Amino acid sequence: MSGGQQKLLLRALAGETLDRPPWWLMRQAGRYLPEYRAVRAQASGFVEFCLTPGLASEATLQPVRRFGMDAAIIFADILLVPHGLGQKVEFGDDGPMLEPISEGSGIGALRRTGFSSLDPVYETVRRSRVALAPETALIGFAGSPWTVATYMVEGGASRDFRRVKAWAYRDPQGFSALIDLITEATVAYLSGQIVAGADAVQLFDSWAGVLSEAGFERWVIEPTRRVTTRLKHSFPAVPIIGFPRGAGLFYQRYAAESGVDAISIDTAVSGRFARDQLQPRVAVQGNLDPVALLVGGLVMERQVNEIRSRLAGGPFIFNLGHGVLPETSPENVAALARLLAGRVDGA
Amino acid sequence: MSGGQQKLLLRALAGETLDRPPWWLMRQAGRYLPEYRAVRAQASGFVEFCLTPGLASEATLQPVRRFGMDAAIIFADILLVPHGLGQKVEFGDDGPMLEPISEGSGIGALRRTGFSSLDPVYETVRRSRVALAPETALIGFAGSPWTVATYMVEGGASRDFRRVKAWAYRDPQGFSALIDLITEATVAYLSGQIVAGADAVQLFDSWAGVLSEAGFERWVIEPTRRVTTRLKHSFPAVPIIGFPRGAGLFYQRYAAESGVDAISIDTAVSGRFARDQLQPRVAVQGNLDPVALLVGGLVMERQVNEIRSRLAGGPFIFNLGHGVLPETSPENVAALARLLAGRVDGA
Repeated sequence: MSGGQQKLLLRALAGETLDRPPWWLMRQAGRYLPEYRAVRAQASGFVEFCLTPGLASEATLQPVRRFGMDAAIIFADILLVPHGLGQKVEFGDDGPMLEPISEGSGIGALRRTGFSSLDPVYETVRRSRVALAPETALIGFAGSPWTVATYMVEGGASRDFRRVKAWAYRDPQGFSALIDLITEATVAYLSGQIVAGADAVQLFDSWAGVLSEAGFERWVIEPTRRVTTRLKHSFPAVPIIGFPRGAGLFYQRYAAESGVDAISIDTAVSGRFARDQLQPRVAVQGNLDPVALLVGGLVMERQVNEIRSRLAGGPFIFNLGHGVLPETSPENVAALARLLAGRVDGA
Repeated sequence: MSGGQQKLLLRALAGETLDRPPWWLMRQAGRYLPEYRAVRAQASGFVEFCLTPGLASEATLQPVRRFGMDAAIIFADILLVPHGLGQKVEFGDDGPMLEPISEGSGIGALRRTGFSSLDPVYETVRRSRVALAPETALIGFAGSPWTVATYMVEGGASRDFRRVKAWAYRDPQGFSALIDLITEATVAYLSGQIVAGADAVQLFDSWAGVLSEAGFERWVIEPTRRVTTRLKHSFPAVPIIGFPRGAGLFYQRYAAESGVDAISIDTAVSGRFARDQLQPRVAVQGNLDPVALLVGGLVMERQVNEIRSRLAGGPFIFNLGHGVLPETSPENVAALARLLAGRVDGA
């Protein structure tokens, strides 16, 4: 359908090289926007906010309305899947807190079917899709099984990942059962988003970089491949973006083996490497330093131009290497939008 | 002097392939040892503890006494350099806290010469060297300029490094002045440790992995090269180990361009890559997952054997990919010592 396809994002994901590459920003909906803070104030808890379609779809649409990105991403959180599985999830000032599940307690208490508590997310997708212009893509997302498992086992963010890794080392079968459960839930959750109208989906593997090669293979690549295989079976036309943040030396294997259509790269991946080693296989998305967006001005402009000159000769989606920082001025995002509106010089 | 050199660590650092590779562990002196907790209790503040030679040398020697590592590393902290520069440094339960210096305040208040407040560290080196067996190497260390700068500017650990990166982006000249100051102080500090008896030194660049390639080149490789060039000029026989933790795709450039004799690799570097791409240029040190040491038993044994079978065919020092976790049982370290006492199977 590439001939009739109007959505730039989907054209890039299908492997097309474009005069003006599409763009969106991870965490483009969020605290740096005053209109986000206003709508966020209308719900008490963060989970409640994510599960109220009227509010979540408004948050989804806000940045596109203001800056005209080529894609909206559903406003939600990767920890909705543990919530859907029946784990207690709360968001405090210091980040998320979960009642951790452990090697000892195991996964017996988690829900294995049903999952209807996430139905409001599909309604958010429907409302957002209806409100968006036809040329704007809508991206659904979920965390990757490994990253979601780290939060479920550590009970929040971690520095050393010792609980989750110790479980995986001591009892790989038992830990596999947890990964399998998350994998199933993730396939169901992303399928629901696709059925409701998501044009593409992204898998966030924020903690892909803390594993050895054997661990990366088993806990990042394998579950991701299972998710992509299952989704491709049901929805062959829906592209999948993978973001194995911090994967460093393993980005190449991820591009080759995980089954994604595009790879989102963090700031520590050089444009040259991405162009030569990743882009021949998959579309590449990224990778401006969020701090360069925070700083703005010429610093941002130079880095944007360098990234585009390296990557816009192949299938490419402009994005950050990580999420928008809450301290970012919306003015800088507006300046970025103007910068990205033109053709790539010399591409 | 390689013929007469008894210290295995120095033989490996000189490029020799050994039947039994030397070993030591990052943070081998520390909270996991009851005797460390006893000696730590004798000083109130952590900085005071590091600057009391009787206590710090005892902490330095404890693990070697118990486990017989091939090297001791001076008990100290990478934030002693900011302390020496006159910045207020405190260690709380949540990690280090510094009175941050900023783009605005600049480096004017920092000391540029003198630095005598770190003299006790050299006394710790002298006492430790005297107490160690001749075949045991003594390692001095410092943080790398970039990593030390992150703490000095962020005021502690950081997630997004936005203050330090924003300064480096906005005002590279001004930020260079800070990096230069730290570089000078680091050269002086490591020289003092070498003069006092350190056989080798290690540069810890814990946050090397958060930069783009241009940033890595300018803020990691360049200052490291200045430190190694200066030290090699004064002390050509003293080997330098670099640990650019999380450097991922940039490990190779670091090995080729920073001027170190050995590179310490984190757990996310595969043995095959280290053997093929790094070991032809430098000795390799690493890289057991600290969580595998925490778990112990067969899990640890298998990973140790795999690492040795990959790397012991060239110049190699067994170590962790990061520091010993405080929750580690000393029994597991004893088991590791037994495991490492033999020749490498099949090497």
